[in-house]
Amino acid sequence: MARKNKKISCAILIIGNEILSGRTKDQNVSFLASWLNSNLGIKVEEVRIVPDIEKKIMKDILDLSKSYNYVLTTGGIGPTHDDITSRSISKAFKKRYSYNKEAFLILKKYYGKKFNDPRKKMAKMPEGSRLVYNPSSAAPGFIVKNVICLPGVPSILKSMMDNLRKFLKPGLKTYSLNVSASTIESKIAKGLGRIQTKYKRFVEIGSYPFFRLGKIGVSIVARSSNKNSLQSCHKDIIKMIKNKKIKIFKGC
Amino acid sequence: MARKNKKISCAILIIGNEILSGRTKDQNVSFLASWLNSNLGIKVEEVRIVPDIEKKIMKDILDLSKSYNYVLTTGGIGPTHDDITSRSISKAFKKRYSYNKEAFLILKKYYGKKFNDPRKKMAKMPEGSRLVYNPSSAAPGFIVKNVICLPGVPSILKSMMDNLRKFLKPGLKTYSLNVSASTIESKIAKGLGRIQTKYKRFVEIGSYPFFRLGKIGVSIVARSSNKNSLQSCHKDIIKMIKNKKIKIFKGC
Repeated sequence: MARKNKKISCAILIIGNEILSGRTKDQNVSFLASWLNSNLGIKVEEVRIVPDIEKKIMKDILDLSKSYNYVLTTGGIGPTHDDITSRSISKAFKKRYSYNKEAFLILKKYYGKKFNDPRKKMAKMPEGSRLVYNPSSAAPGFIVKNVICLPGVPSILKSMMDNLRKFLKPGLKTYSLNVSASTIESKIAKGLGRIQTKYKRFVEIGSYPFFRLGKIGVSIVARSSNKNSLQSCHKDIIKMIKNKKIKIFKGC
Repeated sequence: MARKNKKISCAILIIGNEILSGRTKDQNVSFLASWLNSNLGIKVEEVRIVPDIEKKIMKDILDLSKSYNYVLTTGGIGPTHDDITSRSISKAFKKRYSYNKEAFLILKKYYGKKFNDPRKKMAKMPEGSRLVYNPSSAAPGFIVKNVICLPGVPSILKSMMDNLRKFLKPGLKTYSLNVSASTIESKIAKGLGRIQTKYKRFVEIGSYPFFRLGKIGVSIVARSSNKNSLQSCHKDIIKMIKNKKIKIFKGC
């Protein structure tokens, strides 16, 4: 019998000055977090965003790879001078930063006669890395120890997820149930607190106020890896809201 | 003469399970990073996203407040059970977690007879905190040591920035100049590398491939606090691109 009921944790390290300067809005965290949980039951427990500075990348890679089952990095594996992820991770793990033969051949085939030095650089990675194939633009991601390095461009990253899947051990999936109510948080805070206490071992309840399409409301999200506890908790939340004569938004 | 030419650094700590689960896309990092640099010359050098877990919040607050001039937190200062930022920061700094008199009066006036316990909770914070007034929904943010706690709801956070401004020491503003070229990174990587080496003391050059509106291209962003170096570097980049007969997109 497959053992699938272990918690598998993950951190994401976003590498890139363009995110820290505010120029580019990160799109990878929400995509990766949803994908990892829904496909493999892997829970993202921390995210860090760091600049293109070798020392910072090295420190965070060592910190995070000790603390979580997996670390996924995005960004910094392209051909330009500011792409320093592969070299920094090699240094962090004291592994030789050298051409990966298979990556070199993939890129050579892809670029043909136009396989210049910057493109060759994309085949350099920590010695002993396994490749994550890239169906969009050839340059592969790689895995060294428990660190998985992916590109920063969201469309390319997304296209690689099916190739990444086989390298990751599945864990305990987190399910969620959501109810949105026409209220403000302080009207339901006590009731929610009581329900959270009742289910504290199995369910995590989050309360998120929103203002959209002219409506004010609160989304209450219950999350658990135990479906029965989750459903029972969700029912208690709905009952509490109805008891207060608060309207529940349909389709939420 | 005012001394404005010192580098002022900042970290952002995003607190909230909803961001880590992928349910909610963070909108605050890019807003805060742009606002801090353009209004005050404060540079965001690191971002962390952590769950609603007291120990993690405490650890990161202590880490980041030692490493940067300022730490801005978002999220977790509302009335519900999962809003634990104020309490966690009190514990981290070994300060009493108690009612702030002014915050209590602001909220009492705002809610009138409906000033219930969950609402009172929003007046609890580390002893000795200074308030950041909230023109949208009354509940103030607060400042303790070099840590500034703001709400997670983007519209409310944005409305508080003018009130936050006076508490922050201005630093050295980073300017940027951008050129977008109809090319791929590997064609300009060598040239860019040479220019980066020439300007390594003053200018930081980033290269960002894009695929949008059917166009493939690379945005090259030069960033510097020295306007002369920046302009000179930007000219060199344009010259290098033109020498390669690469088209530059207009309006970029």
